Amino acid sequence: MVLDLDALTPSVAWVDDKIEIIDQTRLPERLDIVELSSVDAVVDAIYRLAVRGAPAIGACGALGVVVGLDERCPRDTIEARAALADLVEIIGSARPTAVNLRWSVERVGNAAAGGSTPSEIRSRALAEALMLIDEDRVACERIGEAGRRELTGLSNIMTHCNTGRLTTAGWGTALGVVYAKAAAGEPVSVMASETRPLLQGARLTVWELDDAGIEVTLMPDSSSAAAMAAGKVDAVIVGADRIVANGDTANKIGTFTHAVNARYAGIPFYVAASAATFDPSIATGDDIPIELRPSLEMTQWRGRQTAPENAATWNPAFDVTPAELITAIITEAGILRPPFDQSIRSMLGSD
Amino acid sequence: MVLDLDALTPSVAWVDDKIEIIDQTRLPERLDIVELSSVDAVVDAIYRLAVRGAPAIGACGALGVVVGLDERCPRDTIEARAALADLVEIIGSARPTAVNLRWSVERVGNAAAGGSTPSEIRSRALAEALMLIDEDRVACERIGEAGRRELTGLSNIMTHCNTGRLTTAGWGTALGVVYAKAAAGEPVSVMASETRPLLQGARLTVWELDDAGIEVTLMPDSSSAAAMAAGKVDAVIVGADRIVANGDTANKIGTFTHAVNARYAGIPFYVAASAATFDPSIATGDDIPIELRPSLEMTQWRGRQTAPENAATWNPAFDVTPAELITAIITEAGILRPPFDQSIRSMLGSD
Repeated sequence: MVLDLDALTPSVAWVDDKIEIIDQTRLPERLDIVELSSVDAVVDAIYRLAVRGAPAIGACGALGVVVGLDERCPRDTIEARAALADLVEIIGSARPTAVNLRWSVERVGNAAAGGSTPSEIRSRALAEALMLIDEDRVACERIGEAGRRELTGLSNIMTHCNTGRLTTAGWGTALGVVYAKAAAGEPVSVMASETRPLLQGARLTVWELDDAGIEVTLMPDSSSAAAMAAGKVDAVIVGADRIVANGDTANKIGTFTHAVNARYAGIPFYVAASAATFDPSIATGDDIPIELRPSLEMTQWRGRQTAPENAATWNPAFDVTPAELITAIITEAGILRPPFDQSIRSMLGSD
Repeated sequence: MVLDLDALTPSVAWVDDKIEIIDQTRLPERLDIVELSSVDAVVDAIYRLAVRGAPAIGACGALGVVVGLDERCPRDTIEARAALADLVEIIGSARPTAVNLRWSVERVGNAAAGGSTPSEIRSRALAEALMLIDEDRVACERIGEAGRRELTGLSNIMTHCNTGRLTTAGWGTALGVVYAKAAAGEPVSVMASETRPLLQGARLTVWELDDAGIEVTLMPDSSSAAAMAAGKVDAVIVGADRIVANGDTANKIGTFTHAVNARYAGIPFYVAASAATFDPSIATGDDIPIELRPSLEMTQWRGRQTAPENAATWNPAFDVTPAELITAIITEAGILRPPFDQSIRSMLGSD
């Protein structure tokens, strides 16, 4: 089967002058496509995680500025610019820690502010938002293609968390490689780890790959050593939240464990990430702050207890995989190989 | 704080001529002590996993034979022996794969059958059942004490699944070491991994340690590499389902992953198990059959979906940790060290 990527429902789309999103809070039970035609609806969707994943949130927020201009119908340029500034502030604050969201809406605001009529401001905002989305799609496609070539002949891919079309405006980073293989008609199947405590692998990765007709098998997070020993994994590919100067990589809790297992099993371990993920201002992973999340995520599942109510928990959002465990980093600018301090510097043009 | 082990509620006890068990299906929400005063109640409790863990099930079944004799009130020795045979068959079949259950009730049946009156048959059955429970308690205490000495100065213990007083008639195997440290007044705290998919660590280990006043922190299974790198773990101790001739150890899925992480972090990795766990008839772990469990365990949690309904899953009950990753095996006969083929043979007296 050759996969037609364009036939799949994207997480965020601009349809008939409105935003359409997949409501991710309803997955995996239901595929609900929700129309967002007001700023309130956009902010609410971002706030309640109906749309999630930094690039997807950014895309939704960027288009939200256009929805807001349409809603407010500014009568002149002064009103339009004031509305723009207001919308950037409102939408940019929907999730305070989402750096990508603020960056995206500000970019749309700055591009649009130069327009000399309300209509031109609106059309500039839309053009910038669509350009931003297109850039994300292109980056995903390039990552996917670079990964596809790198992983020639490796068809059993293990991944962690969710890094696909539910996370980005395009086909994703780690899952982008999987989609690229399927689109090229190459054999590919995925072992998806559950990703406790929020189960993004179980709920989202399994859903989106199955929806695309790609073979996917759900495995407990803890089973990676056993899966590798059983010959079920040719390569591991994960995404990244932040990659620092020496290649140490912060990503969803569990990534580090899978990397250690891959090293023990002699299986290649790849990180797939866009250039925006690199943070050369930090020297090593020791200096990456790790967010600790609330106990409730671990003691309940949708209202049903999973542990004693008052259990003390250690619930880090991320872990840091040491660069020494990473075979290569797949980016839209190509494959980075060790020593990563040099290859990262060279890609970022700071050499 | 010095822990008084005898002050804690055991999983199975003989009180006023009846069995009392902790109903483990109600944990962690409630501590329900259930009285079992009929064979139907005993079989039901074993079948619905109100009592679980091979030694605890064996203890409950053994005492169940006495409950059955009391219920049937045999009028003569012939009737008593017939009842005995019948009870062994009924209780021994409550869980077909529980080898320890059948072994325990047969042992009680054989010991009692030699009695020359109904009353003597009953008293022999009870004596044998209590002896069996006492042997389990003593084995746990010896394992705990051997582990306590071995782990002198190591106070932050990571464990997986549930291996304590909910699993045995005594204080457990891996958790037996933790209880022994607490009982000796030594500092001890536990990092307990959740143990997906059935969450025995989250539900049971956290409950029983907290109930005993021992500091316990719940962690996602996948976080073990991060926890070790963060200095939260001095040693890992796990139980075992089966240890074969070369020391390869089958235990709850995830054990192998924790062992690989411990090796990477340079942290000692211990298995704690009674002599009954060793199976020298199997040469290496390659020959241990691995039970695959149903998808429903991974796609739902107490009626709430955790993954798409029809997700394909890989849900092995166990994995096999290679002997090379095991620092030592803690048994009631002392500490076994590599090379395990020799130390195991020597302990089992087949040298």
